[in-house]
Amino acid sequence: MLKCLKCGKTHRGFKIMCECGGILEYIDEKSGNFNSLLKRQFLDIRRYLNFLPAKEEFLPKLTPPVTPIVEREIKGVKVFFKLDYLMPSGSFKDRGTYITIAKLKEEGIREVTLDSSGNAALSLALFAKSEGIKAHLFIPEHTSEGKKRLLKLLGAEVHEIEGSRMEVHERAKNYQGGVYISHWYNPYFIEGTKTVAYEVYEQVGSLDYALAPTGSGTMFLGIYKGFKDLEKLEKVGIPKMVAVQGKGYESLCKRSAEKSQLAEGIAIPNPPRREQMTEVLKNTKGTCVSVGDEEIKNALEELLSMGFLVEPTSAVTYAGFKALLEKEYFERGSRVLIPLTGSGLKNI
Amino acid sequence: MLKCLKCGKTHRGFKIMCECGGILEYIDEKSGNFNSLLKRQFLDIRRYLNFLPAKEEFLPKLTPPVTPIVEREIKGVKVFFKLDYLMPSGSFKDRGTYITIAKLKEEGIREVTLDSSGNAALSLALFAKSEGIKAHLFIPEHTSEGKKRLLKLLGAEVHEIEGSRMEVHERAKNYQGGVYISHWYNPYFIEGTKTVAYEVYEQVGSLDYALAPTGSGTMFLGIYKGFKDLEKLEKVGIPKMVAVQGKGYESLCKRSAEKSQLAEGIAIPNPPRREQMTEVLKNTKGTCVSVGDEEIKNALEELLSMGFLVEPTSAVTYAGFKALLEKEYFERGSRVLIPLTGSGLKNI
Ligand SMILES: [Zn+2]
Ligand SMILES: [Zn+2]
Repeated sequence: MLKCLKCGKTHRGFKIMCECGGILEYIDEKSGNFNSLLKRQFLDIRRYLNFLPAKEEFLPKLTPPVTPIVEREIKGVKVFFKLDYLMPSGSFKDRGTYITIAKLKEEGIREVTLDSSGNAALSLALFAKSEGIKAHLFIPEHTSEGKKRLLKLLGAEVHEIEGSRMEVHERAKNYQGGVYISHWYNPYFIEGTKTVAYEVYEQVGSLDYALAPTGSGTMFLGIYKGFKDLEKLEKVGIPKMVAVQGKGYESLCKRSAEKSQLAEGIAIPNPPRREQMTEVLKNTKGTCVSVGDEEIKNALEELLSMGFLVEPTSAVTYAGFKALLEKEYFERGSRVLIPLTGSGLKNI
Repeated sequence: MLKCLKCGKTHRGFKIMCECGGILEYIDEKSGNFNSLLKRQFLDIRRYLNFLPAKEEFLPKLTPPVTPIVEREIKGVKVFFKLDYLMPSGSFKDRGTYITIAKLKEEGIREVTLDSSGNAALSLALFAKSEGIKAHLFIPEHTSEGKKRLLKLLGAEVHEIEGSRMEVHERAKNYQGGVYISHWYNPYFIEGTKTVAYEVYEQVGSLDYALAPTGSGTMFLGIYKGFKDLEKLEKVGIPKMVAVQGKGYESLCKRSAEKSQLAEGIAIPNPPRREQMTEVLKNTKGTCVSVGDEEIKNALEELLSMGFLVEPTSAVTYAGFKALLEKEYFERGSRVLIPLTGSGLKNI
């Protein structure tokens, strides 16, 4: 069941917004024991099917893996890097797309519209193609030729829009060709990304802090929601949530004058779920930190030397960790999650 | 313990060849029950640590995942696509590299030499960098600039060699700078790739056929060896092994006049383990099939439409499947494994 965070009205089916303009959240009254609800016969995302608003018969054939965790001790802090870029389309977005597609199939929706400049578009194009769903993708005109070619090769209808990211968004919203499924709003997307938390808990147990690259907030809110479930089912403590943003595009931290170029994947100054995120920061006693291109570049280099082939936007999170480490934000021995969200193979 | 397949002499430590010039195989007298030997607390390759010649304290931090399987019914045949390209360096080679590095660390070897034109070099460079091991990579001069740049960025000493692939191999073999660990010979590499079979067995049970792209044979022999273990521990039947090769470079099938360009990753006309592979084809009553560029191109397109973002050499295996399907090689209802071995993200 979907619930409006503004007026409280409930909805069923596939919907990304309430008539009142409010943001929707998927509400599940799951009870029982986490371990006994696991589908252990699966070594992939389907382990968590009992916690997901998706019916097995509508799941896409293309299945996201359980991604590995690499543990590193960094200046007295236990860091858990989650390799969430090892996904079919090369980014964590596949988690959200997977559940979204399952819901679309259940509702009989065969034609959809999305605006994105990068990973979300590629993820949707790939899953839509493999399920015979028609995808209209609204992208900025300056998107790289290689990416445009790939999206077209995947059979997506590509609409190149001149103008800012917000103009691309407006054009997609008003397009009549398919159901608009913007991941900025879509509550099912977060139902997919919350599986990160379940995996982490199975892999390494509980955490003190969880960082997330935060633009529209799908990873940030997903991790929080997954741990919220774990708190209810397993009495696991929810980690302090730390939003990491790119300088110049902050929505939760104080807005900087410097504008980061490398954080382009999360350069979303006015995310629809901002209030929801502010609430999470408050509830978990978390914080927000923003980083610039110099810090991102250094972080990217260090990640590479640890064997993580990720793209620049992915390095934002580690850059934020380093900035907080410098300020002695983390207690000695703290357990900290750093999800690595997008593959760097594309940039070879 | 390593055993020479030519003179029968046994060896310990890291070694890629017997003094007599014979090929080595790792021999393990593991007994017990497969399920009880699994390390179920891990959802990654470490589940199979009890079957691997690697000690936990020497394992690389960078950990390969259990890769997902996608099941598709194709003309009456049950096909299991194994998404082995969802690996830290973008190819299945990471399995072999992972175990090799563990053994090198155990032996205190900190400087190594490898010749490769592609995925094996990237895999070694990434793992070596993250473990502080010095890697000398011998590559053909015509390797793409992007790939060269990445290898150098990863701190590898890159030696560009003018001449054929065999000349590159000779130069690496005779180089004095580091221990030569050619994956064409290295028996520990196959110990890593055999984990594919364990995963497949856990994920979908037994198979009738297993296809593999076959150049040097590390995937082909790995799958076979893994199932050989499963036969011993679990009385699981070994699938018929099918080697798929690129036209013009066949080592097991009859050599074609046409030369495939797209199968470059497996264009190895004289693999050192050829006899071993011939033996496997005979023992399992398998077969060999070779495919040309037209078939590979079509297969690649079909794979993309199923949501598999793979590179051309990966499509060889599916092209071989389709060629055999046309000849009605598979019985109706057969269960067939098709590993997809290399990511296509690099080629965007
Ligand atoms: Zn409302
Ligand atoms: Zn010998």
